[in-house]
Amino acid sequence: MSALTLADVYRARQRIEGRALVTPLVQSMALSRVAGVPVHLKLETLQPTGSFKLRGATNALAQIAEEGCTRVVTASTGNHGRAVAHAARALGIEAAVCMSSLVPQNKVDAVAALGARVVIAGKSQDDAQIEAQRLVREEGYAFVPPFDDERVIAGQATIGLEILEALPDAASIVVPLSGGGLFSGIAFAAKHIRRDVKMIGVSMERGAAMHASLAAGKPVFVDELETLADSLGGGIGLDNRHTFTMTRDLIDDVVLLDEVSIARGIVHAYREERLVVEGAAAVGMAALLDGAIESQGGPIVIVVSGSNIDIETHRRLIGAA
Amino acid sequence: MSALTLADVYRARQRIEGRALVTPLVQSMALSRVAGVPVHLKLETLQPTGSFKLRGATNALAQIAEEGCTRVVTASTGNHGRAVAHAARALGIEAAVCMSSLVPQNKVDAVAALGARVVIAGKSQDDAQIEAQRLVREEGYAFVPPFDDERVIAGQATIGLEILEALPDAASIVVPLSGGGLFSGIAFAAKHIRRDVKMIGVSMERGAAMHASLAAGKPVFVDELETLADSLGGGIGLDNRHTFTMTRDLIDDVVLLDEVSIARGIVHAYREERLVVEGAAAVGMAALLDGAIESQGGPIVIVVSGSNIDIETHRRLIGAA
Repeated sequence: MSALTLADVYRARQRIEGRALVTPLVQSMALSRVAGVPVHLKLETLQPTGSFKLRGATNALAQIAEEGCTRVVTASTGNHGRAVAHAARALGIEAAVCMSSLVPQNKVDAVAALGARVVIAGKSQDDAQIEAQRLVREEGYAFVPPFDDERVIAGQATIGLEILEALPDAASIVVPLSGGGLFSGIAFAAKHIRRDVKMIGVSMERGAAMHASLAAGKPVFVDELETLADSLGGGIGLDNRHTFTMTRDLIDDVVLLDEVSIARGIVHAYREERLVVEGAAAVGMAALLDGAIESQGGPIVIVVSGSNIDIETHRRLIGAA
Repeated sequence: MSALTLADVYRARQRIEGRALVTPLVQSMALSRVAGVPVHLKLETLQPTGSFKLRGATNALAQIAEEGCTRVVTASTGNHGRAVAHAARALGIEAAVCMSSLVPQNKVDAVAALGARVVIAGKSQDDAQIEAQRLVREEGYAFVPPFDDERVIAGQATIGLEILEALPDAASIVVPLSGGGLFSGIAFAAKHIRRDVKMIGVSMERGAAMHASLAAGKPVFVDELETLADSLGGGIGLDNRHTFTMTRDLIDDVVLLDEVSIARGIVHAYREERLVVEGAAAVGMAALLDGAIESQGGPIVIVVSGSNIDIETHRRLIGAA
């Protein structure tokens, strides 16, 4: 298990204060009716970069800056990349985002608009990753991992503090499960505050790397497949240091969803909650609508992790296109 | 001018604490680029009933309950009606909502689902209003006006406190303008805290009763016309007691929008802000996109008042764009 302490989470909160939003926890009338207990949504969709990733990135970058380093690098063009770019600008340091020449122009533009240096390298995500490592070795950049990093985990864990401070009687917390940074952070903080709170992870059926790794008893490779919950794709790293053991030790249940359920979650969020959410963020609501979240008799909190869905995909799903 | 004091607003905040949400103020990257100054959105869309109306209704009902009355009545089937029904249930008192037999079943169901007593009376809004007055006269109900009431105004004014506490340097605040309860409440609190903050009201061209009344120098009757900003429709009351004079004395500018602009605001909210908003709530964003909000050189706050749009109308608007 990691050396993380609850004090690290409080320090993370101090570092990200004013830079990431203390997001509202709002009750869903529709989901409360379905569940028969109060259901609350933790709206990370409202973060400035549209996802919870800003918390972990800001905490990591603030620590990197405290140590005197002024250049950070990542190879993510998704929510983590946006978060690193945004946090770097806020902290007055330089961010480089390495990506392959095959990354679509709109993603390149989005990263550049956040003030990051775009580094085009090769034709695959692996090439981009190799270029990021070169910048670390040769140009003094600090690498910011997307999830398997104690500073990142501590940042995401601030969500756990906020949930139990706002709702000390939460019976279960439902969290999208991918590399496990979000899950293990929230679970770490929540179970420190209330040991009996149930922690439920939700992934898509198609390429759920953490679920496969938990089943195998060690990090395993899983083919990445196309899914509406694209932010949940990708491996957990065969050399995983933190999130595999933390998730294994803190998780009470895993739910896997098919694509129809994820789509239903996105549509429910739009029609009933008036929220535009990405697939990864819809999985908690979808799992509850599927009847896959067992009631513990008390309030359920669902973490709604982000809003960065391709808007044409969203329009198609809700039937507007 | 009314006898309202800033202390009344702080008392209102105390009464509504835990019953209405302290809503987040989030920066809009897209609108900040358009305006050239930081633009922040005050998200009243997240209130449990989907609009700011919950603040005023909760403050009024809490005072009514403190005075020992346990029955309240309104004739609104819109945001105010929902808010009264929700607040009554939260406070453990009875709410009756009078409506005509022509009100669509889905609106009847929505009010009933919030635990209110539905009273069907006659075939028009006037008939419903007369029945509400009868309940006050003959059955001891307390009437809760939708806007022209100091308790309601004080409740909405808590938004002004929250804005200037979070952003003391706000240069201007843009507020949807209808009966003037929201506008005069926010303007009252904001100008007490910073006299030089600019207060801008935005209405639709079609049936802007407050604008017409300001132009005439007294409350006047205006025909109600169909508009996407339907929550902004209706008169201000020829016997207006508070909101007309407060709005007149506190407003710096009025912007009127055509239907195309309002639609553009709804589409912008969806595509760029990932928000589902009703027409009335889109007017501030729409006015800014139209170039109708003059920059004061400092941050602009736009109040996004609610999310209760007919979802089929919303789908049509975002599909047509």
